[in-house]
Amino acid sequence: MGYPDTFEGFVVDSPKTWNQFHRHELKPKPFGDDDIDVQIECCGVCGSDVHTITGGWGEFEGPLCVGHEVVGKAVKVGKKVSDIKEGDRVGVGAQVWACLKCDVCKSANENYCPHMVDTYNAKYEDGSDGHGGWASHIRAHQYFTFKIPDSIPSHLAAPLLCAGITTYSPLVRANVGPGKTVGIIGIGGLGHLAIQWARALGAETYALTHSEYKTADAKELGAQHVIVTGNDEKWAEPYKFKFDFLLNCANATHKFDMKTYLSTLKVGGEFHMVGIPEKPLAPLEPLAFVANGSKLSGSHLGNNQEMKAMLQLAADKKIFPKVETLQLGEEGCKEAVERMKEGSKVRYRFTLTGFDKVFGKVEYGA
Amino acid sequence: MGYPDTFEGFVVDSPKTWNQFHRHELKPKPFGDDDIDVQIECCGVCGSDVHTITGGWGEFEGPLCVGHEVVGKAVKVGKKVSDIKEGDRVGVGAQVWACLKCDVCKSANENYCPHMVDTYNAKYEDGSDGHGGWASHIRAHQYFTFKIPDSIPSHLAAPLLCAGITTYSPLVRANVGPGKTVGIIGIGGLGHLAIQWARALGAETYALTHSEYKTADAKELGAQHVIVTGNDEKWAEPYKFKFDFLLNCANATHKFDMKTYLSTLKVGGEFHMVGIPEKPLAPLEPLAFVANGSKLSGSHLGNNQEMKAMLQLAADKKIFPKVETLQLGEEGCKEAVERMKEGSKVRYRFTLTGFDKVFGKVEYGA
Repeated sequence: MGYPDTFEGFVVDSPKTWNQFHRHELKPKPFGDDDIDVQIECCGVCGSDVHTITGGWGEFEGPLCVGHEVVGKAVKVGKKVSDIKEGDRVGVGAQVWACLKCDVCKSANENYCPHMVDTYNAKYEDGSDGHGGWASHIRAHQYFTFKIPDSIPSHLAAPLLCAGITTYSPLVRANVGPGKTVGIIGIGGLGHLAIQWARALGAETYALTHSEYKTADAKELGAQHVIVTGNDEKWAEPYKFKFDFLLNCANATHKFDMKTYLSTLKVGGEFHMVGIPEKPLAPLEPLAFVANGSKLSGSHLGNNQEMKAMLQLAADKKIFPKVETLQLGEEGCKEAVERMKEGSKVRYRFTLTGFDKVFGKVEYGA
Repeated sequence: MGYPDTFEGFVVDSPKTWNQFHRHELKPKPFGDDDIDVQIECCGVCGSDVHTITGGWGEFEGPLCVGHEVVGKAVKVGKKVSDIKEGDRVGVGAQVWACLKCDVCKSANENYCPHMVDTYNAKYEDGSDGHGGWASHIRAHQYFTFKIPDSIPSHLAAPLLCAGITTYSPLVRANVGPGKTVGIIGIGGLGHLAIQWARALGAETYALTHSEYKTADAKELGAQHVIVTGNDEKWAEPYKFKFDFLLNCANATHKFDMKTYLSTLKVGGEFHMVGIPEKPLAPLEPLAFVANGSKLSGSHLGNNQEMKAMLQLAADKKIFPKVETLQLGEEGCKEAVERMKEGSKVRYRFTLTGFDKVFGKVEYGA
């Protein structure tokens, strides 16, 4: 078989063989009136892909095709699809479905819908599997499929669909803007975008990094100040009551002395986690919150309106991730996940490209 | 010596003798232009008193006089004191000084001033000790001394100065009011006031209690719904995405399965701690926050404006603590702290009274 009955993707079979990809046929959910089929041009590589295939976030049943930063061409649109037509260049992120009827969805929080379907390693209510974007095609609900502004190259648009929205949404929900002092912790796949958003939104922007070697990058990305946290236990002393919002993009919160980070927040300030380690946080003293009325929080992606606003902001201000491209295939997927797992070996995001060499050319337009 | 050179109070000498009180002379700070001397009529008993004298929040140097829910007569006012005159009935809470100059103070968060002086077990910048209210007199800065509305009896006003503001401030800072769904966890010295504030502010008010036996009390205090959390591990299932704000008044957060509590919050909802255990929280999974974009927070007292608003609300709506009075003295102080330490043995707050029998009569008016 083949499209439209089946897709093809690069899959792993189990956490034990997490870096061994092979080409495999994928059965999509039945095509619905709200669905869009996307012929994939390229797809980003996200920390979540690695957490998932290594079993760090729990076991999974393979074969599993990951990838949730998808850019490609809409090749088939359901009868009820309104804003996207065949031939459009579109993106799909880490979510492909929500009920859009429950109170959570109706409050514009469909990214927390209790019935949500993640892009991969998730089942629809009819038992169908969601499949990721390291594949020939993806099928997604129109509410989770977004037009990509013309001025953003595809390989740079891809990481915006997950890393972008994951960092953009909490900043806007926290009303980050002029007059606010914001710290971005961890200059990596998430943080290097967060710095750019915070600055574009008008905040006084600090980058907090464990060691000096990313200082120049942080400044180039727009951070007005850089705090190196790894050399001096007392790094936080000059920053008591400094930040309105700290966005933790580091995948290492379990190693953090959280009390020290919380101490740098203004009264009512918030330490917000989007970098999600596989281990629990170190034991927290309630008094750490009481000292300045601070908050600890986390979030997951963003909503439809935020995704559209973010893509427009990226286009308007030319906010792009720093991307290294890798050719899709057994080798490219392996290299991507191995280097991602080591963290420091990517600056700052991979996009798998050359899908046309594997699956055939993508030509936009009807 | 004696007043005005020295005060007299009931003190403990060390954590080892935490329940053995004896009468002792106390040396106040030098009287300043902003200071007010209060001849004490009665004083509440707070969980903090017990945490402090038992060494649970750290060692201390005795002799220590605790008590920070003070009501009495202003008997001397400094030259710069504006709103309070000699003869007024006033209250002093858990803070007696802040710089009122720093950015924290200027943002109306003097209850977090880095230079703040707690009512007891704290030193002024000149080295003077603060002394608590289980004593003949207290000396406090005018900004931390509050007129008590006439309609609130003194023994009922006392607990408002700490338990009252501690629960009122986070509710108003979280914009609790009509349309909000609020849960008050723990029906005790703090919680029984929090239920009344939440209801008075117009929120749909739930009480969450470990066992059934306080259900009737919770309803009488104004809770429209009561959730018993101790009988069924799945108590939270019907309440996913339910609460805008959970105010934890229980002194047992370290035993909580926080993930379960967080799961009952709306997207962006907040679990706020004012009951502060001596032990750290159980290890927290960052994913618990990510599931609904929830927040964990804590706070300490409230500011001057909130204290005044709370006292007025209490007077207007007759919101009073439920108080058992005990006679001030070696015996009364011992009974108070021993029964407080056991938690369930007080419903819901003690006020030490009969100061006139020990130190002489308090007569209001100039």
